[in-house]
Amino acid sequence: MRPRAFPILVDGHWRPAGAAETFRAVNPATGEFFPGEYPISPWTDIAEALAAGTRAALAMAAIGPEPVSRFLEIFSELVEGRKEELVATAHLETALPSEPRLGSVEFPRLLDQLRQAAAACRDRSWCRATIDTKLKIHSMFGPLGGPVVIMGPNNFPFAYNALGGGDFAAALAAGNPVLAKSHPGYPSTTRIMAEAALDALGAAGLPSASVQLLYHFAPEDGLRLVSHPSVAASAFTGSRLSGMALKEAADRAGKPIYLEMSSANPVFILPGALAERPEEIAGELFRSCLLAAGQMCTKPGLVVILDDPAGRAFVDSVKNAFEGSEPGILLGPKVLEGLREASTRLAGRGAELVAGGRDPSGLGFRFSPTLFTLSGTGFLRDPAAFQVESFGTLSLIVLARDMAEMKEIASRLEGHLTGAVYSHRDGRDDREYAAIEPILRTKVGRLLNDKMPTGVAVSPAMNHGGPYPATGHPGFTAVGFPAAMLRFAALHCYDNVRPERLPVELRNANPTGEMWRFVDGQWTTRSL
Amino acid sequence: MRPRAFPILVDGHWRPAGAAETFRAVNPATGEFFPGEYPISPWTDIAEALAAGTRAALAMAAIGPEPVSRFLEIFSELVEGRKEELVATAHLETALPSEPRLGSVEFPRLLDQLRQAAAACRDRSWCRATIDTKLKIHSMFGPLGGPVVIMGPNNFPFAYNALGGGDFAAALAAGNPVLAKSHPGYPSTTRIMAEAALDALGAAGLPSASVQLLYHFAPEDGLRLVSHPSVAASAFTGSRLSGMALKEAADRAGKPIYLEMSSANPVFILPGALAERPEEIAGELFRSCLLAAGQMCTKPGLVVILDDPAGRAFVDSVKNAFEGSEPGILLGPKVLEGLREASTRLAGRGAELVAGGRDPSGLGFRFSPTLFTLSGTGFLRDPAAFQVESFGTLSLIVLARDMAEMKEIASRLEGHLTGAVYSHRDGRDDREYAAIEPILRTKVGRLLNDKMPTGVAVSPAMNHGGPYPATGHPGFTAVGFPAAMLRFAALHCYDNVRPERLPVELRNANPTGEMWRFVDGQWTTRSL
Repeated sequence: MRPRAFPILVDGHWRPAGAAETFRAVNPATGEFFPGEYPISPWTDIAEALAAGTRAALAMAAIGPEPVSRFLEIFSELVEGRKEELVATAHLETALPSEPRLGSVEFPRLLDQLRQAAAACRDRSWCRATIDTKLKIHSMFGPLGGPVVIMGPNNFPFAYNALGGGDFAAALAAGNPVLAKSHPGYPSTTRIMAEAALDALGAAGLPSASVQLLYHFAPEDGLRLVSHPSVAASAFTGSRLSGMALKEAADRAGKPIYLEMSSANPVFILPGALAERPEEIAGELFRSCLLAAGQMCTKPGLVVILDDPAGRAFVDSVKNAFEGSEPGILLGPKVLEGLREASTRLAGRGAELVAGGRDPSGLGFRFSPTLFTLSGTGFLRDPAAFQVESFGTLSLIVLARDMAEMKEIASRLEGHLTGAVYSHRDGRDDREYAAIEPILRTKVGRLLNDKMPTGVAVSPAMNHGGPYPATGHPGFTAVGFPAAMLRFAALHCYDNVRPERLPVELRNANPTGEMWRFVDGQWTTRSL
Repeated sequence: MRPRAFPILVDGHWRPAGAAETFRAVNPATGEFFPGEYPISPWTDIAEALAAGTRAALAMAAIGPEPVSRFLEIFSELVEGRKEELVATAHLETALPSEPRLGSVEFPRLLDQLRQAAAACRDRSWCRATIDTKLKIHSMFGPLGGPVVIMGPNNFPFAYNALGGGDFAAALAAGNPVLAKSHPGYPSTTRIMAEAALDALGAAGLPSASVQLLYHFAPEDGLRLVSHPSVAASAFTGSRLSGMALKEAADRAGKPIYLEMSSANPVFILPGALAERPEEIAGELFRSCLLAAGQMCTKPGLVVILDDPAGRAFVDSVKNAFEGSEPGILLGPKVLEGLREASTRLAGRGAELVAGGRDPSGLGFRFSPTLFTLSGTGFLRDPAAFQVESFGTLSLIVLARDMAEMKEIASRLEGHLTGAVYSHRDGRDDREYAAIEPILRTKVGRLLNDKMPTGVAVSPAMNHGGPYPATGHPGFTAVGFPAAMLRFAALHCYDNVRPERLPVELRNANPTGEMWRFVDGQWTTRSL
């Protein structure tokens, strides 16, 4: 490692990474490297963090939820105090707009998530304490018993940051130490978050290895890590290719891994809706596709309409909007490369390019907002190929011959995060809705009406998840407290365990007076 | 297929299996084949059942929980009406005692499970309807959208029968059709259950393919089945070898699979307990090991005590009990083969045979109750080898040098279904308990005090599950309603969906008046 590389955070100390390679982040607006060198950790760094994390897991189980809750609150305050620096740094590293995106949307969401996690942790209802008073059997969700590895994506430097974002907050709030790997696109943003976390650890009295940070490691070390005996579980948000490799490694070792991999977020626009408000819907689609230069996991990448005059006019509207817009700056060269490849692939398989598809001149990584169309027959010839996520402003409108073909398209969908249906406000599409909805329902995690899928509310009722290959399991959400915490928890049953040895959550007295418990088949907050 | 082979149940009809092989079940008490020929289905049978099951999934989603609940009740009544025939048949096919085991323990449990599932299905609280009234976001667990494949084990012809047992009831109660594969050890028992199920389907008004039955298929077709695009999820209870192969196939295809594979069910007996009541504990261990000839997934297969005079006296007690007991009849030749192999393996790795280890003479498959001992050092030399499940009455007592070594043994455990700790009643082992429990807690699904793990209560607070390799995921239980149903459910979020299009469980009015829903962070039964 060159001497000026930034240190890693292991077991409560900033210390140099093991002798190894370094990397520099790229300024997406210019294509130039930033000056700061960050380490690519060798396995010895990872092993050391794992050993410390394993000790921290035992220590955290012993001290219970209060210090974790305190940590999340103090951390959110310290992060809030460094907002200006964080927004400026994240803007430099990702080229996402400082305002409103970073400063007024994502940063408040970051703080909100941390505080919701702190509240859920303190409240304890999340653990679903279940008591059978007759049989003296008790159960609850508890921590996994080892460090949780979190690997964040490129597109949310705050809300999904491996150190500070939603997965981080959920894993900690469930009582697990976190071993975070920064996305290499924004190491300085992550470093600032980690500085705040280290201060908060001390103030909250959490074990020093409850939060650790590595910036980068070789892909093969990633596979070794998620399948390592000491790792309790992993979470990964990113590309399908990387996600699939990690999934295979973790699955083979029997290690839980939660993946958010890819989603085309199909949108079905029924004929009545297209007759009623074509311009309005075209505008919504356009704005949703352009948001953050299309680099949203819920970007509508597949739109299905009828191939009739109204449908063709809709395509023209969207095409005009796409053509009249400026290409945003992409997060990095890989995103640009992915868009080029997707364009070539779609065109090669018979989709028609109607807007964009070019690299515009100018500084930074950019790709023109790109729109393809395709017949329903064309889609059904190779459904899997046409629902691969294209990360960036690239969408495909499929023109179905009739409602039967639209229904057939729905039935050939893989798993996606979201699926939306637009219909006429007066109910004239209800028959068509009833034909599409039951099929779409089982293919997506979140079903929307008359609304584009971008914008994920942090609500207990949210599901940011969905069937494979959108994620690895249809029963878990990555967003929303307390549900997201259950990914990082094990079901712990206590059979005939002496009352004084039970966790406080399972004893007769309700430990907070307000915690919800499932006692003899009824939810209650009362003490027994 | 020979003409006299029994038909399979596909899409509501008993019909001959496709031309193929047949098998006959073996009478474990004599080693002779029973006369009845049962088909080994070719892939065409499976494909047909899958297609019918896929249609049934859509139909079941449309009619909601009431007919499923009715089916489970009617089925339980019809099964109860055939108790005599079922107990006699199961006794013949498994050699498990008619009384008390089959008639007075397992059969009542079967009925109880079906009725608990019916009640949970009707109650609907299981689906965890979650409502955010401010953001208009709703979510609940719903059916998976395809047939669930259930493959049952050899040792519970009623309670774990693929057609009628716990997984069956849980998958149906969550709204999914079931494609059951009988264990080949008791096809006639399963056939009677299926006859009752077909009658109940008609009476309850469930789609004809909601319950289907195949008796057997080739292992490679099993792998193809659990990874098939039309399959929603699978459940398997059986050997680690088969379970691992199925897991790999399902994982690769991104298909959820719930496995109950193997468990040594470690029991730690602390020194105070051994001083206080050595004979009592030796008796409990002996009876637990001998139950059903040791063919229980929760049989204590690994006992850890201190290597001191009391520990050695305890070994002698257990040894005498084992030697003085008659070997029970095993379920089949594979169980016998497994016990022979386990004995050879343990002896080959340095464990000392102190009782049994022989094939006694006489009719049927039998193996003497077998006890091994091993030093803590010996265990720690190869911990993985000494915690493989030995299915049958075969246990290993590990004699630890001191408490530090006992703790080290605990820390080297893999995932198991259960873990028990015996300690002195007056609390003198509390320090030792506090050293062992936090380690053991994260290794097992169910932690017991002063009690052997055999006997799994069907309680909402039960966890019959545990970390890998006991199962494939530490967050799910195979026993207990409503929790066991969540394995067969997907999280369905509704965002901005028009009120009249929401499932009734998510509308303002509470659909039953009694269903628990999580509204704005509080559990409630009120309407909105």
